[in-house]
Order: sequence, then structure tokens, then C-alpha cells
Amino acid sequence: MKAVTLYITCSDETEARAIGKQLLTERLVACINILPAIQSLYWWNDEIQDDSETAFFAKTTEDKVDQIIKRIGELHSYDCPCVVALPIEKGNPAFLDWIVEQTKN
Amino acid sequence: MKAVTLYITCSDETEARAIGKQLLTERLVACINILPAIQSLYWWNDEIQDDSETAFFAKTTEDKVDQIIKRIGELHSYDCPCVVALPIEKGNPAFLDWIVEQTKN
Amino acid sequence: MKAVTLYITCSDETEARAIGKQLLTERLVACINILPAIQSLYWWNDEIQDDSETAFFAKTTEDKVDQIIKRIGELHSYDCPCVVALPIEKGNPAFLDWIVEQTKN
Repeated sequence: MKAVTLYITCSDETEARAIGKQLLTERLVACINILPAIQSLYWWNDEIQDDSETAFFAKTTEDKVDQIIKRIGELHSYDCPCVVALPIEKGNPAFLDWIVEQTKN
Repeated sequence: MKAVTLYITCSDETEARAIGKQLLTERLVACINILPAIQSLYWWNDEIQDDSETAFFAKTTEDKVDQIIKRIGELHSYDCPCVVALPIEKGNPAFLDWIVEQTKN
Repeated sequence: MKAVTLYITCSDETEARAIGKQLLTERLVACINILPAIQSLYWWNDEIQDDSETAFFAKTTEDKVDQIIKRIGELHSYDCPCVVALPIEKGNPAFLDWIVEQTKN
């Protein structure tokens, strides 16, 4: 089972923690790493917006990504949240096994 | 159209913001996330250097990467800037569509 | 030679710096970027743990990843450290060459 690293941005740390914890509780991800506040510049309504956000990484297996995207859509305050899956090409075998183990329903 | 996450390091936040904003203005990327200061250790002139830098992620489509590398080369203070493209395997479909939409010339 | 970005989490910045510097000294990686402290939530002993950690990125070539995983296993304080390799699809050619150059034994 292939593992992936998800990268998700949220409005702030409270939202990142709440969504991350829910994904963990539902065994959709094995772990999350919440980064300190980031500064985001992005196109919205034809203008470059400039806001503080909070991003987090989450490790999971490839087969869970669609379910996670759906779940984040239900939990997130944004209409169009950034949820992207970066493939993990290789890794510490014990850690990759641990990801599979922790996300088994 | 496949999307990618670019990871770029700069000398400081001012440079990260200036380069990121220029890439946005030229519709080469849809959004940037500037991380808080990072500590970088790296080989240069046969010694391990130890400097503070600022990194940012940028989301764009695969077909723009060469143009972005060229543009960063023109804008960046380094002779050999770190610009790497991490493939996005999967993601929130609405967000991926938004990336394509925002980077259409 | 394909390049990869490694993502590694450590107990704190001291450990991240020590492991990163050792990998650099042994020419296993060309550079490391230590992120500011992250907040990690993860399953361990059937409970969601909530700890501060330090993560770092390291750039290297694909053929070194197994050796790096083994070496981190010897150096790291965790029994099961997170070491994952994210493929670099494309990048600044001069930077990618520099990675190869700096990791040649």
C-alpha cells in the first residue's frame, strides 16, 4: 500500500488542529505535523490576496485520499480548500508500515 | 493539466515575497505559502555553511515550471537558487481546477 | 541521477541539526532546511499523542535514500523515525547538478 504526504492549508492553527484531530480520530491519517503560521498570497476575486494561514502535513495511504478530501470539504471553513497529495517514493520501511497499521479501520 | 508544488528557498522573507508576488502577477503561479524563517546547512566552497533562509511553496501547473525556473533565475539574488517541483498525485478537484484557472494567461 | 527531497522529523532542533550535519558531513545529502518547531499529533500506544517536534527537508539523490534511512536509524532517538522521500519531478538544472556534485563520495 503506497503512502502519501498530504499538504493542507487552513485559516489558522485552531482550524488545522480541529480538522487534523478529526482525521486522526477517524483513522484517515496516521499523524499530522502543523507548521507555524505561513503567509499566503493568492489570486481571489481577480486580486492578489495576502493572508496568514496555517498549513499541516498528514501521512496516510493513497487509498484514503478521496475520502479525506470529501471529509475536509465537510469540515473546512473554505469553499475550496487546498488539499494536495504528494507521493512518497520511498521511506523508512518501519514508518511506512506504521502508517498502514494506524489507518486500518 | 497536472499540478505541481514548487519549493523555493530565498535569502529572506523580503526576497521570497518579492519573487512570489512577481510570479503571481505574471500568472505563473496561483498561490504561494511563505514559511517562517528556516535554518539551512549546505555545502558551498567545500565547507558546510549555516544560514537563515526563507522558503515558500507555490502551486502551479507542470507546463509552467521551465518558464518559472527561468524567471526565478532572473529575479533571484543567488547564482544557483533551489527551485524544485514536487508532483501532486491527487488533490481536491476544485482546488486543482482553481490552479489551472488562475494560471491561464 | 534523480533527485529527491527527504522529509524527516526529530524530537527537537538540536537533534535535527545534529542528524542533518552528520548526513552532510558524510556527503549523503547536499543541504538541509530546518523548519521552525512543528506541532505533531499522532497515534501511539492507541492514543493520539500531541508533541512538539522539529522537521527538516534534505536534498539528495535517489540512490542514497536507503543508506540515509539506515544511517538515521543509527543516529535518531526514535525507534521508528519519519523519513520519507518526495520525488523531485523537475527543477533548476544547475541546482539539481549541484546536488549530484555535493553528494559524490
